[in-house]
Formats: sequence, structure tokens, C-alpha cells
Amino acid sequence: MTVADIKIDKTSAGLAVFEQRIALLESRLAEVEDNQPEDKVSMVVFSGELDKVLAAFVIATGAAAVGQEVSMFFTFWGLNALKKQSKLAGKNVFEKMMGVMSPAGTEQLPVSKMNYFGVGAKMLRKMMKDKNVASLEEMMELARELGVKMVACEMSKDVMGIRDEELIDGLESGGVASFLGDSLTSKASLFI
Amino acid sequence: MTVADIKIDKTSAGLAVFEQRIALLESRLAEVEDNQPEDKVSMVVFSGELDKVLAAFVIATGAAAVGQEVSMFFTFWGLNALKKQSKLAGKNVFEKMMGVMSPAGTEQLPVSKMNYFGVGAKMLRKMMKDKNVASLEEMMELARELGVKMVACEMSKDVMGIRDEELIDGLESGGVASFLGDSLTSKASLFI
Amino acid sequence: MTVADIKIDKTSAGLAVFEQRIALLESRLAEVEDNQPEDKVSMVVFSGELDKVLAAFVIATGAAAVGQEVSMFFTFWGLNALKKQSKLAGKNVFEKMMGVMSPAGTEQLPVSKMNYFGVGAKMLRKMMKDKNVASLEEMMELARELGVKMVACEMSKDVMGIRDEELIDGLESGGVASFLGDSLTSKASLFI
Repeated sequence: MTVADIKIDKTSAGLAVFEQRIALLESRLAEVEDNQPEDKVSMVVFSGELDKVLAAFVIATGAAAVGQEVSMFFTFWGLNALKKQSKLAGKNVFEKMMGVMSPAGTEQLPVSKMNYFGVGAKMLRKMMKDKNVASLEEMMELARELGVKMVACEMSKDVMGIRDEELIDGLESGGVASFLGDSLTSKASLFI
Repeated sequence: MTVADIKIDKTSAGLAVFEQRIALLESRLAEVEDNQPEDKVSMVVFSGELDKVLAAFVIATGAAAVGQEVSMFFTFWGLNALKKQSKLAGKNVFEKMMGVMSPAGTEQLPVSKMNYFGVGAKMLRKMMKDKNVASLEEMMELARELGVKMVACEMSKDVMGIRDEELIDGLESGGVASFLGDSLTSKASLFI
Repeated sequence: MTVADIKIDKTSAGLAVFEQRIALLESRLAEVEDNQPEDKVSMVVFSGELDKVLAAFVIATGAAAVGQEVSMFFTFWGLNALKKQSKLAGKNVFEKMMGVMSPAGTEQLPVSKMNYFGVGAKMLRKMMKDKNVASLEEMMELARELGVKMVACEMSKDVMGIRDEELIDGLESGGVASFLGDSLTSKASLFI
């Protein structure tokens, strides 16, 4: 159908139909715009192994570098990556056992495969250094500088007996609702 | 350009261009609306470890609680979380070996780290109880009440020799197409 | 409000407001369309275990079969799934150790659970064969035929000392930006 074939009602009633259709388009489009994902990447960092945490930070810093907002939600073993150092005072026996079996800080994170008495993690660090790949500590520092949001899972801190003072500074604290708030408005969500 | 500067063709032909542009907007917007993700979260639960299955249900119930439709696709070891009890009759030798090595039901799920003869899982349960965190069984019950869809992977049931009667009630059965159907219309998809 | 109630300004100035509103809708809708996810599924294949790699290819081929563009980014241990055979010549001592401890090619991939001297992987292969489920090698071949894009992570190749000639043919090479480029325009992104 060409423009010439379109019958137009030039009366007020006819033009009022235009008005109605435009107004409807405006409200529908506003709803679609509200529902659009933002330029954002969200991840749950569940694993506490050096290689997986490293992969998480490579993706996080890469996403931040291309202009994405990035939100990392550290839960369960992933919290170990955020530890400053081990503190056992003032914990109950289960919390102490958990503390002894969990590594403290990124220097002690195991590798998910071939973790023979820590040799796997050391080897990976050595190889990364030989190849001039940034270490996890450098990645975390870069992530902070790039404005990556890091959230420590409240429930995990509570269950695993981890105190805020054991964790590095600059973290937010939140629950699953915090992760979902970010994830549901993100272009990509990853469980690592 | 202000409204006063816009040149308007008030003839039928001029108004017909309005009609065309509005109609085109309507069809384009309808297509965008069809392509919008729904208020939905999908996950593949591949792992059968207590901590990961627990994390899956925390996210699932959290998402359902904030009004998201939730779909969980249990495959491979994740199916173990859905088992009622171990049944070895009527299976071939490989299926029996798989059954012996796979835990039956959520009470027997190992923890992904530090699973020293099951002490890790017991400890995690004890700590969760001390902290009044819902157990996996309570989470699963809550998930059902919140209308979370749980799908048992057909191929995995077949390969691992798991019969429907070994699994808890109320499950749907489906393949990868079922997962994809949910995932491609979801705001977030996770592989756990 | 019915059409009859709408007051219409039939002057040029009145119609110019229509023109403006339509033009604004057109530009806003174009922006929304640009921001729409494509019919695409992206995944990071981080794990090198037979069961997880298999799950990745089941999802990848399933998604391709229903018309999705599929992009798989193989990194860390996931690269092992793409190996042809082990080659140790010309590597430094760390790279050699990594090579010895990493499996070569899909026939040697361990299973993430119950990998008793490889018996788990053999059993899974045997059960899959008994049940006429496609093997990983068949899945990979199918994925190629369906046009699934497979990208080998450059940083991982470098850190783990893997040469291109050790990997199967037809792979692309890329970094995290390559994954993000696909993931941010995908309907679903998975970290496996």
C-alpha cells in the first residue's frame, strides 16, 4: 500500500485516532524502556578456588573496561577470596573448624584441579608471573579502581562465622535480594 | 527545532505519511515486546553438592519471593538432590555402580569442599541450624509453595539409570529444549 | 476517555506536535531495538571435566538446533577439551608439569565426581553408549556442523603453555573482550 492509497479522515474525530495511537505507543514504549537490561554484568562468586576467582575477576575487569557496570556477589567459599587474614578468636568450635579448613585471603586459595599440597596454586601464580599476567591481587585492585561493586553475602558470613573485620575493606554487604536486584537488570549473569 | 518551525502538509497525502509512520511504529514495537525477557529466572542445577544445591534454592526462592517465575532444570549430579531414597533393584551393573557412588536424597549430599567422610556436610547443616538458616529440605518445600518449576533432565535419568519413582513428587520431566525454552525468555540464567 | 472526547488542534502548529511525538518515538524505539539481545547463547567453558564439557555441548547443540547463534569460550581447563594430543617439546618446566597433569583431548577428560583412576569417565561413556546418547566427540562434530563458534582463550593458552597446533582445527582465538562481545548481546550466558 502506498501513501497515496491511504484514506485519511481529516475531521477532528479522525485526527483524534492518531492522538490515541501515538499516546498508546508512548506508554507501551516507556514500559519496554523500563524493562530493558542496563549495561551491567552480575556474578555470583561461589567458588573459592584461585583459578575460578581469577576467571571471575578477569571477566569483571574486562566488563568494567568496556563500560559495563559490574556487580560481584561473593558467597560461600567465594568469601575466602575477600579475607585479609585468619582470625580464630571468639568463634565457636564449628566456626573454628570451618576457619581452619578454609583458606585465608587470596594468597592461600587452592586451585580447583591438581591442588597437590598447594603446588597447583603456586605453579599457576608462577606461570602467570612469567607470562606477565596480572595476579589476583592486582586484578582485585584494578576491579576496585574500575568501580566494580563487591558484595559479601550476609548469610554466608553468618553461617561460616566470618566477621567483617576479617574481610578486606570497601565491600558492601547484602543478601540474595541484593544479587537479584543487580542480576535481573543485567545483560549477563554468571554463577562462578 | 521548535514546533513552530515544523512544516506540516495538511493534505490527505501529508496526513497519510503520519498514518504510515504510526503503523510502522506499532508493528516494530510489537516485535520488540514479543522479544522482551519475561520476569523469569532459569537455572541448570548440574552439581549435586549440598552447598551448590543450597545456593541454587536460596536464589530460586529469593527470586520467586520477589515475583519472578523460576525454573530449575536438574541434570547430571543435580538429580541426586531430587532423590527420595536409593533403589538398586532392576538396574544393570553400571547403573548399580552409579547408584552406589551417588548419594540418595538431600540428607546425603556431599559438600563441594572439605567433604571428609561427610563431616563437611554435617557441619554445614549444624551451622545452618545454629544460625536459624533454613535447611535444604525446608528450602525445597518453600520453593514448591512459591511455585518454582523443577524439571528432571530426561537424558540424565536415562544415562544414570534413575527411575521416576526414585525421585520426589511434583517434578516435570524434560530435555535441553525445555531448559532453553525457559532460559531464552528469562532475565537471568545460571549454570550451577 | 473516548475518541470523541479528544480535543484536536487542526492547525499546522497542532499537527506539528504529532510530527514531533512520532519522530521522538522513532528515535527512542530505534535505540531500544539496538539494545535488544540477539537470538544468541554464550558460554564460558572453564571446566575440563567430561561431564561438564558434555553438558556444555548438549546445551550448545540444543540451542543451535532451535535457531540460536551459539558462542563457546574455552578457558583454563576447558581448553583441554579442545586438545588433539599431548605435546611436551619446547615447553618450560612449569608448562611441562601442567601438560602432564592436564588431560589431552576429550578421550582423557576426567569426570567431576567419582573419578577413581578414570573409571568414572569410562563408565559414563559406556552408559551413554548403552543408551545411545551421542558421545562428546559426536557432540563436538555436531556443534561444528551447526555452526557453533568455539573460541580458545588466548590468555589461558599462554599461561598454560598450550600451542595452537595442539588444539583441534577450526577454532577462533580471543580474549575476554571476545566473550563479552557475545555475552552482552546474548539471551543467555552460562559459566560452566
